[in-house]
Amino acid sequence: MRTTIIGLGLIGGSIAIDLRKAGIATTLVGVDHNAEHASQAIALGLVDHVESLEKAVASSELVIVAIPVNALSKVLPSVLDLVSPSAVVIDTGSTKGLICKAISNHARRGAFVAAHPIAGTENSGPEAAFSGLFLNKTNIICEAEKSSPTARTVAEKVFEALGMNTIYMEAEEHDKHVAYVSHLSHVSSFLLGQTVLDIEKDEKNIFALAGSGFASTVRLAKSSPDMWAPIFEQNLDYLSQALQEYIMHLQRFHYLLLKRDTNELRQVMTKANEIRRVLEGIELKQTEKKAEASASN
Amino acid sequence: MRTTIIGLGLIGGSIAIDLRKAGIATTLVGVDHNAEHASQAIALGLVDHVESLEKAVASSELVIVAIPVNALSKVLPSVLDLVSPSAVVIDTGSTKGLICKAISNHARRGAFVAAHPIAGTENSGPEAAFSGLFLNKTNIICEAEKSSPTARTVAEKVFEALGMNTIYMEAEEHDKHVAYVSHLSHVSSFLLGQTVLDIEKDEKNIFALAGSGFASTVRLAKSSPDMWAPIFEQNLDYLSQALQEYIMHLQRFHYLLLKRDTNELRQVMTKANEIRRVLEGIELKQTEKKAEASASN
Repeated sequence: MRTTIIGLGLIGGSIAIDLRKAGIATTLVGVDHNAEHASQAIALGLVDHVESLEKAVASSELVIVAIPVNALSKVLPSVLDLVSPSAVVIDTGSTKGLICKAISNHARRGAFVAAHPIAGTENSGPEAAFSGLFLNKTNIICEAEKSSPTARTVAEKVFEALGMNTIYMEAEEHDKHVAYVSHLSHVSSFLLGQTVLDIEKDEKNIFALAGSGFASTVRLAKSSPDMWAPIFEQNLDYLSQALQEYIMHLQRFHYLLLKRDTNELRQVMTKANEIRRVLEGIELKQTEKKAEASASN
Repeated sequence: MRTTIIGLGLIGGSIAIDLRKAGIATTLVGVDHNAEHASQAIALGLVDHVESLEKAVASSELVIVAIPVNALSKVLPSVLDLVSPSAVVIDTGSTKGLICKAISNHARRGAFVAAHPIAGTENSGPEAAFSGLFLNKTNIICEAEKSSPTARTVAEKVFEALGMNTIYMEAEEHDKHVAYVSHLSHVSSFLLGQTVLDIEKDEKNIFALAGSGFASTVRLAKSSPDMWAPIFEQNLDYLSQALQEYIMHLQRFHYLLLKRDTNELRQVMTKANEIRRVLEGIELKQTEKKAEASASN
């Protein structure tokens, strides 16, 4: 399939590599408004050449739109205006409610599949792209009933080629869950980083005192503001709920600490320990999938 | 040296293994009020045998006290009452202010070295102990001027044998820094775990949606409440400051989000990105030390 990737960053670039490997993308055309990213993507062999959005989209059978979520709501309607009748368009945005709303009444809604392949690293840009980024991870497709059967089949093939497990959800449900399980982690990490940098003017002390625990908790504070600011804004309602709930829990903990209510503090922490079961489940799931993958190779 | 380890958990057990390897501990005596831990420690070969605190301490040249910080303030004065005139006592507590105060006027203060070897995992108990836990990590010695030259020399040998880099600080200074760089990370992680478990009654969704970012940020929520409740309480003043500052930053972020002030949100995140430099420094430091270690082997 002649495939266009709009947005040649970590996500778009990694999809390009694995769609070519899988033989799904025969010719790969790149679109990026950042000229440096565009030429890096060619130099790295992520895409065969770069074209204008109009030209690239009009002549492709598959279009993957992997750009920040604020740009998605604007770019998607134009892409759907431009694609050929048999083309399929898939997005990879981390929020789904506003994006689905933006094209809900578009005449070509059926050609579109709203997806969120959950994967990433704290790095960004074409140079951060690599094969296997999506392997054994979860992909979420929203409003699947609004996509045509052909579009759904193509999307399923794409995400299968990336090695992902696809599940289905409503857009609002998706946005609420990711606010708690993904977006809140990022906010908590950014502000932990800010708090520590604020007090420790002398970074020597952070170097000396930080164990691996600190490094792990604050890792997401390295994430790209350009990517996350629009996600937070698009998911404002649910993220705001999640953030308020997190602040309430922190404030109650602070109150218990000031009261020296050790029993209650211990209970809160013991309850939080249940996350161990969830994390072991995640690790187990990933180990099993890797075992399956190597058994079937 | 005939060595007694009081507290046969992750820290005490790991010290036992490496002091025996280094030839510093010739006979290892264990003390633990938890009978199961005591017999596990013998079965695992961490210590040669287990004795009562009185008997073990009276006949040892080196005593390492690796018990929760609330117990430390009570146990340390008795240990100093009981040790032989030439013995050296070292603690490993994660807070130092109250512990140093508890023995500041003790006649045998000089025999004691207040230490905080910064290392750990989210696991606890004798079975969690392993060789190399402390390798290339930082150890902090507080109020070094109150320890006798002999005690300081022995302590330096002990932490060198564990592969640690020792730095010196005042007890209050130590407690303030660790409140921000270590204790706050744990609180933020415990409550992130609680917030997510609270909303996601159906753990299936956490499994499906959690990327590696979530797992990393919430990892410390697996930590032992029995260990951390006393640390938080002993470091109440500084942890309370750190927690309040963290909550303020979260609230300001929430306010900016509600205002849709994307520019300011982006600035906060860009500033937090500076943590990247600190984390790279930590990784670099560890890589260099490993290279040195393998070059000198």
